[in-house]
Amino acid sequence: MALDIPVILHLTTIQQYLKTVDLIPVIEQGFVAYSKGNAVVPPVGELIFENPQGEAHIKFGYIRQQPYYIVKIASGFYDNPKFGIKSSQGLMLLFSQLTGELQAILLDEGHLTDVRTAIASMITLKYLAPRRIEAIGIIGTGIQAHLQLAFLEKVCDCKNIVIWGRNPQKCLAFQKDLKDSPFNINIAHSISELSQLSNVIITTTPSSNPLLEDHQIRKGTHITAIGSDTAGKIELSPLIIKKADIIVSDSIAQSQSRGEIYQARKQSCLDEKKLIELGHIIQNPLSGRTNDQQITVADLTGVAVQDIMIATTILEHHLKLTG
Amino acid sequence: MALDIPVILHLTTIQQYLKTVDLIPVIEQGFVAYSKGNAVVPPVGELIFENPQGEAHIKFGYIRQQPYYIVKIASGFYDNPKFGIKSSQGLMLLFSQLTGELQAILLDEGHLTDVRTAIASMITLKYLAPRRIEAIGIIGTGIQAHLQLAFLEKVCDCKNIVIWGRNPQKCLAFQKDLKDSPFNINIAHSISELSQLSNVIITTTPSSNPLLEDHQIRKGTHITAIGSDTAGKIELSPLIIKKADIIVSDSIAQSQSRGEIYQARKQSCLDEKKLIELGHIIQNPLSGRTNDQQITVADLTGVAVQDIMIATTILEHHLKLTG
Repeated sequence: MALDIPVILHLTTIQQYLKTVDLIPVIEQGFVAYSKGNAVVPPVGELIFENPQGEAHIKFGYIRQQPYYIVKIASGFYDNPKFGIKSSQGLMLLFSQLTGELQAILLDEGHLTDVRTAIASMITLKYLAPRRIEAIGIIGTGIQAHLQLAFLEKVCDCKNIVIWGRNPQKCLAFQKDLKDSPFNINIAHSISELSQLSNVIITTTPSSNPLLEDHQIRKGTHITAIGSDTAGKIELSPLIIKKADIIVSDSIAQSQSRGEIYQARKQSCLDEKKLIELGHIIQNPLSGRTNDQQITVADLTGVAVQDIMIATTILEHHLKLTG
Repeated sequence: MALDIPVILHLTTIQQYLKTVDLIPVIEQGFVAYSKGNAVVPPVGELIFENPQGEAHIKFGYIRQQPYYIVKIASGFYDNPKFGIKSSQGLMLLFSQLTGELQAILLDEGHLTDVRTAIASMITLKYLAPRRIEAIGIIGTGIQAHLQLAFLEKVCDCKNIVIWGRNPQKCLAFQKDLKDSPFNINIAHSISELSQLSNVIITTTPSSNPLLEDHQIRKGTHITAIGSDTAGKIELSPLIIKKADIIVSDSIAQSQSRGEIYQARKQSCLDEKKLIELGHIIQNPLSGRTNDQQITVADLTGVAVQDIMIATTILEHHLKLTG
């Protein structure tokens, strides 16, 4: 029988559950399944809106032998904040892999996408950051910048954070928001200053021009680029990809059409031999950073396995609680 | 502000609304918008399941200047009936084109897809059937076969129906189901018999081999093929497409990769000059059938504009009722 009422979870409940579940091993498991070929993840669907400007991504897929297939809709309408509305919106749907029946609707308003993106970033730091992190530079002051710090303690002890954003007011607001946190938040006056102070850099902007240049990067630095998830976005100069010793992609297939690696490949700045998929690094950490002199870059464009794993984890947690 | 609770409509409510709304002009408007290039309808997302066999289609898009963008998930798991579960499942989601916020969830369990498919079939009959319909032959005895008759009176007066299905029990059950209807339901012993009796034929099966052959088609017949919506399905011999005078596609773009026209093109049985899109026929009915000797074929693979229009109509009806 079709469920008369599928499970419907609102954001407040989901946020409650997120305090309890441990997402890093779960999402690692998703990346491993993906890199092993156990995930069925077709190309991402995309809708572009012109007036007002916005975009919606439709991701869908499943991991074989698991109970659910997932469809996730996540949108970004960058004018929304002018009207007091979050720019990112969305929800996730879970369906039975056995019958196609709708099992659950997670009305997360895009929050699970934000969280699974931050978790993927944490996973890249876990495997690729140098052993001694002097400071972590964060470029951008939006939701992703904040979420990095929400999960950072799960993967490293570093408390020195350097931030840079185009808008000085937002930098100050960011610093103020975190004044009671365990982190020591410093505002850099320039990206150059940020990259001099930091040997881990996380870029979190929707920029369409490179922000970080190759000459700014110190030896031994790890960079995780989160922002560029469409063909039109770029945060890193392609010369950084050229300079890096190891380049990690969450999805090599997806890097053919979007993200920093896509941009670098177009500029003939990518040595394919240096490219490795995140799921393979998780399976064999020795294929990642092996010394503190290497420059490593992780490019995250977002893969449906992350959505599959976070949605399944939230639903299973709910089902366990409600018997 | 995000709506705390988007509108959630269950199947029973949706079925109630369907009794009132007039879908033919609405869905015609969708096809016209599509053929005029006013719809943004990216390629359909598809998930294939192997154990048990199933498929899910994810369709999404919007018509410019309208309030909503739509995502529709519709699946077919053909073993479901063994367990008392409908083979087709699904739901539709409506989001604001201005902010991306989720506006409504239509938990239609696939019913709106079934209905909009039947309505598209009715639209093809409205424009392409010969003036004097002797009998309408329906191949298949499933949901689509039933739904044709639910809407047939909106577009023609013919009450003579000839059905054929592989399973004689299901033919008898179909006849019994409709014994109190205005229709005179005859069971054909073969497809050949069906096509001798009928000058309109509607094929509604998920067949992967041609069922209807070119030599079986009488002059003046119109055929609407509904069943083949993936690359692996085919109901009509490609020689029927070769023989036809006018071939109508709901989406010429989609006919590059699925449906009867796709199959015929692969076999070099398609004369592209005879091919016209349904939206153009609606705008200019004279580009369709012009005499009662022509053989016409309409191939429906399903386009997201149908979903956009039916979902928008249901939601707007609901909003009108609830003030």
